[in-house]
Amino acid sequence: MDKTASVGIVAPQKIPFETPLPLQNGKTLPRFDLMVETYGELNAGKTNAVLICHALSGNHHVAGYHSAEDKYPGWWDNMVGPGKPIDTERFFVVALNNLGGCHGSTGPVSPNPETGQDYGADFPMVTVKDWVKSQAMLADYFGIETWAAVIGGSLGGMQALQWAMDYPGRLKHALVIASAPKLSTQNIAFNDVARQAILTDPDFNSGHYAREHTVPRRGLRIARMMGHITYLAEQGLGKKFGRKLRSGGYEYGYGVEFEVESYLRYQGDKFAGRFDANTYLLMTKALDYFDPAADFGGSLEKAVAGIQAKLFVASFSTDWRFSPERSKELVKALIAAGKPVQYIEVESHHGHDAFLMEDEAYVKAVRAYMNNVYKDVRP
Amino acid sequence: MDKTASVGIVAPQKIPFETPLPLQNGKTLPRFDLMVETYGELNAGKTNAVLICHALSGNHHVAGYHSAEDKYPGWWDNMVGPGKPIDTERFFVVALNNLGGCHGSTGPVSPNPETGQDYGADFPMVTVKDWVKSQAMLADYFGIETWAAVIGGSLGGMQALQWAMDYPGRLKHALVIASAPKLSTQNIAFNDVARQAILTDPDFNSGHYAREHTVPRRGLRIARMMGHITYLAEQGLGKKFGRKLRSGGYEYGYGVEFEVESYLRYQGDKFAGRFDANTYLLMTKALDYFDPAADFGGSLEKAVAGIQAKLFVASFSTDWRFSPERSKELVKALIAAGKPVQYIEVESHHGHDAFLMEDEAYVKAVRAYMNNVYKDVRP
Repeated sequence: MDKTASVGIVAPQKIPFETPLPLQNGKTLPRFDLMVETYGELNAGKTNAVLICHALSGNHHVAGYHSAEDKYPGWWDNMVGPGKPIDTERFFVVALNNLGGCHGSTGPVSPNPETGQDYGADFPMVTVKDWVKSQAMLADYFGIETWAAVIGGSLGGMQALQWAMDYPGRLKHALVIASAPKLSTQNIAFNDVARQAILTDPDFNSGHYAREHTVPRRGLRIARMMGHITYLAEQGLGKKFGRKLRSGGYEYGYGVEFEVESYLRYQGDKFAGRFDANTYLLMTKALDYFDPAADFGGSLEKAVAGIQAKLFVASFSTDWRFSPERSKELVKALIAAGKPVQYIEVESHHGHDAFLMEDEAYVKAVRAYMNNVYKDVRP
Repeated sequence: MDKTASVGIVAPQKIPFETPLPLQNGKTLPRFDLMVETYGELNAGKTNAVLICHALSGNHHVAGYHSAEDKYPGWWDNMVGPGKPIDTERFFVVALNNLGGCHGSTGPVSPNPETGQDYGADFPMVTVKDWVKSQAMLADYFGIETWAAVIGGSLGGMQALQWAMDYPGRLKHALVIASAPKLSTQNIAFNDVARQAILTDPDFNSGHYAREHTVPRRGLRIARMMGHITYLAEQGLGKKFGRKLRSGGYEYGYGVEFEVESYLRYQGDKFAGRFDANTYLLMTKALDYFDPAADFGGSLEKAVAGIQAKLFVASFSTDWRFSPERSKELVKALIAAGKPVQYIEVESHHGHDAFLMEDEAYVKAVRAYMNNVYKDVRP
């Protein structure tokens, strides 16, 4: 692997915040840590900072490698790095693990200062609004008054949009990719099945599985297998696996027969071994709750009326989880509210996951847009 | 409820077959029963018989009620009855529970003659081809040489198509509704997740849960909840539930918040209480295995070349499980093979489940087609 084409070896840092954070659900987090990675250099005017918000199962490790032995780079290494569309030779890129996450930021696997034990199920539910608030505190920590851009795909795109609404003066651009202004009924339904798989796993133990020395692997695995199908499109799945059989013929049993079964089970097992169930539960809830228009009588146009940032919106032709129609709802509202917005619908057979892939038109569009972002902010 | 508009009170009958049935997987069923309901009268020439094949979770109870107290009629009562599109004043309608089912036909919950205990996981895997073979034996039992029509939706449509291919001289018409000539990769993937939910339920006990006095309800419930989402379309789900909350606001917990969650969980619970897990597993496998073109080098045109029946194919605009494209594959192959076929794509927001619903154009089309079937066969 050519690690020179990336930001190279990077180290995350844990940033403590000793200020209480009041949450949307009425509770207060007494203190919290955010696990963060940064790439590139903050310029003297502190105008070139870019925030990357992660999706459901993402984290702060966006680009580069943690060691020379590391086999895989961060989750958006194809997009973030020297000379890449989000160019670390131009921008100071900040990425974090969200509150409630399981990769170093305060979340269900962190100690609850009140009990000394892990929070587990007692970790308060956090929302997109809460995340953005904590990210604003992170901006303060770095002395960043205004982000050149806040960028995210899927749930990350919701954070970028919420940023533009909640802190209109603190970002110049928001890139909302493969996202939606709120979940559809079907989206919520899939999330509920995923949660029920976890909640009814006998090893879940009401969310205090760590205390009971169990892991609700079965539930997490099923949730991820199902989720994974919704991230992909038949167009891609069919191309990759079709009806290919592992052996030559049917075996009339419940082992792996079709290659796609092997792939899915592998994805489910891998995820169940690395991700925290309580984090998964609360992040799906953050998705469900996101609905900025609700505070404006259901009018998205009114919800975006205060936005000062310029918007870039991208969707993917075969994304049926957050279909192009959902992005167009946002684009229409922005246009109706007189906001500058650039929209691209990318042809892709990668479904929702396309936002992580390298479809040429997509990469080109982000590169071109980020070039313009840079023109706006360079000293 | 006006039970006079239906076939009224009906009683199923269990028909024993003491002939061994060799199955596609190489095993032989030593004997079997089929649980059957019939409506209407077989005419003297035995030309007016119609076979109805059920889908994944269906059974022999297609129309009418089992008692005066019965709250719900059979699963296709809106389509089958006196004066209805499949008119029981004209046709002798035969409906059965498929082999491997859990509603009276020989299946996993039946005693294994070799052990005296329930088959459970030892019930052999059956395929669409096996079902059709057993249905041909059922036709023989009734002295029916030729069906006026074989009709089915979804997995039932696959049986109707298989009938036309395997017994070309024994049916005049096949009605293949909301079906597909084979599952897509995504279809197989969803089936595998459903099966994994059941197979990894600690109460599954390798399929011998009856013997262990357990029921893998958790797995069945998750499988059904997920399946149910795929039977419906966002268009219908959104119209019915939208983002409606059970209480006025967010509760920041994992109980029911959105109405769609309540609906889905109810569907899952109901199903888990009434359906056998081993039956569910093997019926999803029958779906996966169905691929009549595979025996003809992947050519569906060649697979249908021997068909003598006339075909009626119907699909529904918002059905994303077996989309209109899948029906069109079949229609194209039939046309290429020079077979008479009538195709209708019905506008509906009911998704895959539309085949059970009363969308007007659909009901009209089936009625018109069945009028023509009757012209073909009336004495």
